[in-house]
Amino acid sequence: MATDNLTAMLNKTKDLQLIQTPIPTIADDEVLLRMDCVGICGSDVHYWQSGACGPFVLHEPMIMGHEASGVVAKVGPKVKNLVVGDRVAIEPGVPCRYCEFCKTGRYHLCPDMKFCATPPVHGNLVRYYKHAADFCYKLPDHVTMEEGALLEPLSVGIHACRRAGLTGGHTVLVLGAGPIGLLTMLSAKAMGASTVLITDVLQSRLDFAKELGADHTLLVTRESKEEDVLKSILSLLGDHPDVSFDASGATATVRMSLLATKSGGVAVLVGMGAPEQSVPLSSALSREVDIRGIFRYVNEYPIALSMVASGKINVKPLVTHHFSMEETVEAYEVARQGAGIKVMIHVQPRDTNNPKKF
Amino acid sequence: MATDNLTAMLNKTKDLQLIQTPIPTIADDEVLLRMDCVGICGSDVHYWQSGACGPFVLHEPMIMGHEASGVVAKVGPKVKNLVVGDRVAIEPGVPCRYCEFCKTGRYHLCPDMKFCATPPVHGNLVRYYKHAADFCYKLPDHVTMEEGALLEPLSVGIHACRRAGLTGGHTVLVLGAGPIGLLTMLSAKAMGASTVLITDVLQSRLDFAKELGADHTLLVTRESKEEDVLKSILSLLGDHPDVSFDASGATATVRMSLLATKSGGVAVLVGMGAPEQSVPLSSALSREVDIRGIFRYVNEYPIALSMVASGKINVKPLVTHHFSMEETVEAYEVARQGAGIKVMIHVQPRDTNNPKKF
Amino acid sequence: MATDNLTAMLNKTKDLQLIQTPIPTIADDEVLLRMDCVGICGSDVHYWQSGACGPFVLHEPMIMGHEASGVVAKVGPKVKNLVVGDRVAIEPGVPCRYCEFCKTGRYHLCPDMKFCATPPVHGNLVRYYKHAADFCYKLPDHVTMEEGALLEPLSVGIHACRRAGLTGGHTVLVLGAGPIGLLTMLSAKAMGASTVLITDVLQSRLDFAKELGADHTLLVTRESKEEDVLKSILSLLGDHPDVSFDASGATATVRMSLLATKSGGVAVLVGMGAPEQSVPLSSALSREVDIRGIFRYVNEYPIALSMVASGKINVKPLVTHHFSMEETVEAYEVARQGAGIKVMIHVQPRDTNNPKKF
Amino acid sequence: MATDNLTAMLNKTKDLQLIQTPIPTIADDEVLLRMDCVGICGSDVHYWQSGACGPFVLHEPMIMGHEASGVVAKVGPKVKNLVVGDRVAIEPGVPCRYCEFCKTGRYHLCPDMKFCATPPVHGNLVRYYKHAADFCYKLPDHVTMEEGALLEPLSVGIHACRRAGLTGGHTVLVLGAGPIGLLTMLSAKAMGASTVLITDVLQSRLDFAKELGADHTLLVTRESKEEDVLKSILSLLGDHPDVSFDASGATATVRMSLLATKSGGVAVLVGMGAPEQSVPLSSALSREVDIRGIFRYVNEYPIALSMVASGKINVKPLVTHHFSMEETVEAYEVARQGAGIKVMIHVQPRDTNNPKKF
Repeated sequence: MATDNLTAMLNKTKDLQLIQTPIPTIADDEVLLRMDCVGICGSDVHYWQSGACGPFVLHEPMIMGHEASGVVAKVGPKVKNLVVGDRVAIEPGVPCRYCEFCKTGRYHLCPDMKFCATPPVHGNLVRYYKHAADFCYKLPDHVTMEEGALLEPLSVGIHACRRAGLTGGHTVLVLGAGPIGLLTMLSAKAMGASTVLITDVLQSRLDFAKELGADHTLLVTRESKEEDVLKSILSLLGDHPDVSFDASGATATVRMSLLATKSGGVAVLVGMGAPEQSVPLSSALSREVDIRGIFRYVNEYPIALSMVASGKINVKPLVTHHFSMEETVEAYEVARQGAGIKVMIHVQPRDTNNPKKF
Repeated sequence: MATDNLTAMLNKTKDLQLIQTPIPTIADDEVLLRMDCVGICGSDVHYWQSGACGPFVLHEPMIMGHEASGVVAKVGPKVKNLVVGDRVAIEPGVPCRYCEFCKTGRYHLCPDMKFCATPPVHGNLVRYYKHAADFCYKLPDHVTMEEGALLEPLSVGIHACRRAGLTGGHTVLVLGAGPIGLLTMLSAKAMGASTVLITDVLQSRLDFAKELGADHTLLVTRESKEEDVLKSILSLLGDHPDVSFDASGATATVRMSLLATKSGGVAVLVGMGAPEQSVPLSSALSREVDIRGIFRYVNEYPIALSMVASGKINVKPLVTHHFSMEETVEAYEVARQGAGIKVMIHVQPRDTNNPKKF
Repeated sequence: MATDNLTAMLNKTKDLQLIQTPIPTIADDEVLLRMDCVGICGSDVHYWQSGACGPFVLHEPMIMGHEASGVVAKVGPKVKNLVVGDRVAIEPGVPCRYCEFCKTGRYHLCPDMKFCATPPVHGNLVRYYKHAADFCYKLPDHVTMEEGALLEPLSVGIHACRRAGLTGGHTVLVLGAGPIGLLTMLSAKAMGASTVLITDVLQSRLDFAKELGADHTLLVTRESKEEDVLKSILSLLGDHPDVSFDASGATATVRMSLLATKSGGVAVLVGMGAPEQSVPLSSALSREVDIRGIFRYVNEYPIALSMVASGKINVKPLVTHHFSMEETVEAYEVARQGAGIKVMIHVQPRDTNNPKKF
Repeated sequence: MATDNLTAMLNKTKDLQLIQTPIPTIADDEVLLRMDCVGICGSDVHYWQSGACGPFVLHEPMIMGHEASGVVAKVGPKVKNLVVGDRVAIEPGVPCRYCEFCKTGRYHLCPDMKFCATPPVHGNLVRYYKHAADFCYKLPDHVTMEEGALLEPLSVGIHACRRAGLTGGHTVLVLGAGPIGLLTMLSAKAMGASTVLITDVLQSRLDFAKELGADHTLLVTRESKEEDVLKSILSLLGDHPDVSFDASGATATVRMSLLATKSGGVAVLVGMGAPEQSVPLSSALSREVDIRGIFRYVNEYPIALSMVASGKINVKPLVTHHFSMEETVEAYEVARQGAGIKVMIHVQPRDTNNPKKF
């Protein structure tokens, strides 16, 4: 078997290096994966730049990577769902399977969750990686490894929509046109939203959102007055949105989601905001606008895969940059600058494992 | 004002005639409508041919028509949502507004519902018709009067999907490819179903369903064995469907919906079946497959309109036959023979009120 | 018919007077009520003392009263559910019956709601009052007029529990032991909560809560540190509560509800708080603790009545003070001082209409 | 360690014997239990008398027992929730933890479920029994071992109520006053049902139900006409019940649940009925009465325990007969004759492990 196990190790803040680590040994219910695609997420850049993301702090060296796909290289004796050679998308969190949260279908809230590249758990930006077999999802031939990696952020978008109770005919406001905002928009449209208005501070992002299918876009600036933005939203939609998603985390967008949502509607706060925020809570609450956060996703990988495989959601246009694993630091630098939408790192040469080219 | 009020009156079983009736006087919260399009539904044919449909029986002459659109000719003094000239789709049932069902958002179950062309309530296949203004929905310019009329059966399909809790990624089985089965399929796709298998006893209907977007079709015959049909369904879908819709009402399809649905899934029985049926209840119940019926629709007209207006659902291909009001009996005869999908009667010359031609 | 129509009119801030007004004329779907009991609510005191409550402002004289019961004196020709002599509880808000909110079972959010003693709508602290018959609920003989009046705040408690999705086995935290906190506690217990912890700044209120059935009580003071209060709550309950209710509106209790609720649980903010609040939103949202406000109640009067009539909830102990209508200003003064729990005004002599004495 | 491991083995139909078997060895996540109380369920009697229950068939000798409690004698190295000496209730089914059903909070539908005394899985009517530690629930001191054993059938009742969406103010019909019917009634009352009507063919059972808190009882006989029973139910309740539970499985009661339930309500079929049944499906479906079955329970043990521990549900009166383990066959004979409600087998002398006597 191969011995090269190149690994993208974040030693400490701003110190990301490619090193060699031992190829892992699998347990009975695990598979060994030869990694293929690994996307870069905003949280990855946070860890790299500041050693922390929200409440999670880097205390010792950690392998990066959690938006990933790979090919099964070895299967444990108890594995029934996969065979060697299967191309899979990897759901990066594996829960304890024993606690109240795991038993009630909310395993994403399991306090003993092991989640790739969330300290102190290693990620999968590495040549060989082992994972619980039941959290690997076999890709049909016509789905590419890149799409497999993108199921991770897409699952966030789908989770946000399911948390919102989004259904046919809903009018939707998405605040923020970064990757998560865009994927939330695509999910909302695929789940029946009839109209989506998306906002951002960059016109380029709005232009891209429009190409992806946004019905309306609204450019806001730091100088925009809250009441003016609200008026513009109501004017464009013709009414308050049934559902609003804050995909930014900024206090201004959190506030707008509370103010704009229709009475009896839902404001889903997708972005991770500041620990303390000053918000017009009673405006939302006295109109019975429910406020819901999201934490990753749960049971959404199979949905994301079926949406991509059936063509209901096309995530391909989101990949704006490609790098080989050897160019990892450069890739992170591009992601940090926020030039494109999604930066993809190829652990193996592009299209090696794609029966249908990306 | 005009005095011609040609009216399609069902005097008694098999006796449908065009006669003149007085133009109605409106109440304060009503509008007078100059009717445009009226589709023919299976229930209409039932009343015509047998004087009854399910528990509803014709005891005195009744004006036909309930899938309809028209143009506002007059508004009552309390009407705020419409003005003269507005083109509207007409939700044909007006509830009492006072009972427990009306107050809990289930007005379709109101025991005092007045529903067009359900005895003893007159329908709207007539030149001038009055209706509660709040149950008339203004059509945008780009939506045709024909589409407005089709919102009625589409609302049934959307109601079926909402009753099923249909959401992103669901695998769906639709049993029966008549108008309701097709509209349920279109609704399911628009609300996120990733895969839909539709069955019928006519290959021509399946071919049409395929054109409309069915992922899989299955021809069944009266001779098909239950276990073979089940095997074919599981083979085509790769698993049990999350949701199944019986859009036929035949005992064979009711049974199949109970047998085929995935454990923990939902079987929605859309078709009105025989009062007593022998069914494998425990097969469904012991696997916690929920069995849900539907009765018309509730709060789905606005959703249906937004789905059509936004282009998420295209109902136009369903209209296979057009007749003028003067040809009403001929139109009913064509509907009775089941040659096409949807027969549309034009109370006014085609496209008179369509800014965008049908 | 009687001509005395003594009326408790709030002319302007701090100017509450008893005057005579004309006995109203009823519409076809209304009843005329001879009023019996009218409780005083916190909002009443707000209007009296400051001319406003939340976003609602007094601009012209308004009759007070909205927690009330009465006896039917006259029925409109369309009224079917009541006859003269019926003893009824009065749900004080009558919606438009036409809008989207009315049709979807959320009539409490109707923008055209007419709600007693919310400016500019008159209340029912008056000898004769007319009301929509379908918002009057007939009391069985063994339910007193006082209990009928208390269905109003009890409906708030039940609505809070239904908004929380409260069900069997839930552990509950109630922050604030005023009338609404206590009624929420009683509702929660009646709907299956296994353990309820209630907090307040007054030991006397906690003692009363204990008598009513609180499993645990916790005295907090303005000096209590947030982290200490949280520790005490977790220690008393043995875990985070599944559901928390803020029945105070103070920033400290809003904060505690967000911090204390179990991951995946629900924090219901019942109290009307300041328009802008600084809160640890992300602590709740990142753990998928849903934040829900409430606005009055909807479809809860029948539930409240059945809970009281069946003995599942005993509201009688909450009435700590009784006054005749002639003593209205004195009654308001007692309510303002916050000495007891619920102050009841008797428009007719006590027990006049109670087959079973209070 | 002890070597006596007396075991109640069902060798084949009607051949139940007490034999010795080896004391089992535990896995890392398991505990060894010294068994205390084991109740007898209807399914146990079915296996004993006919070698089958529903779709499950006895093919080889099987240890009986699944309504049980015991004391922890040994803990595996990975067990965190229990220590030696803990008194526990045993949830008898352990799922695979890997499949779609396990991950979505519906582990009771797991196709690889290992459930005590459901062939071919052994039960726990034995001196020493091993079980997954996380499916053992520690009993507080004041809860007896008998109550611990009764959490099993109580969980069925609570599951039925949760499946029904039962909440405050519901009017409930329970068809059948056997153990499951009674426990469903107790659960419904504890979760907020305001009125419960229970029916049976035996007056003695109805008398017992009345003592336990039934609001109304109705004796039906095999000769009772369907329409007369329906009239009696509506007359006693004053309206259709919001929720009906069939706790019998007989076609007559399944039919009545469909006919009697209020439009828009829920009929839960708890009893396991014949594979094929002739039922008035359309009566229920056209009124949007949802039909739901139940399969065991899921996540209800903690709820059942909290309901019993808090005193909201008192299950003690249901135990009508006590036998020592040595009298097992006699106990089964009494259960078969249906003389009492619940027959309890004591593997250890009564009250050995009860700090508070039963």
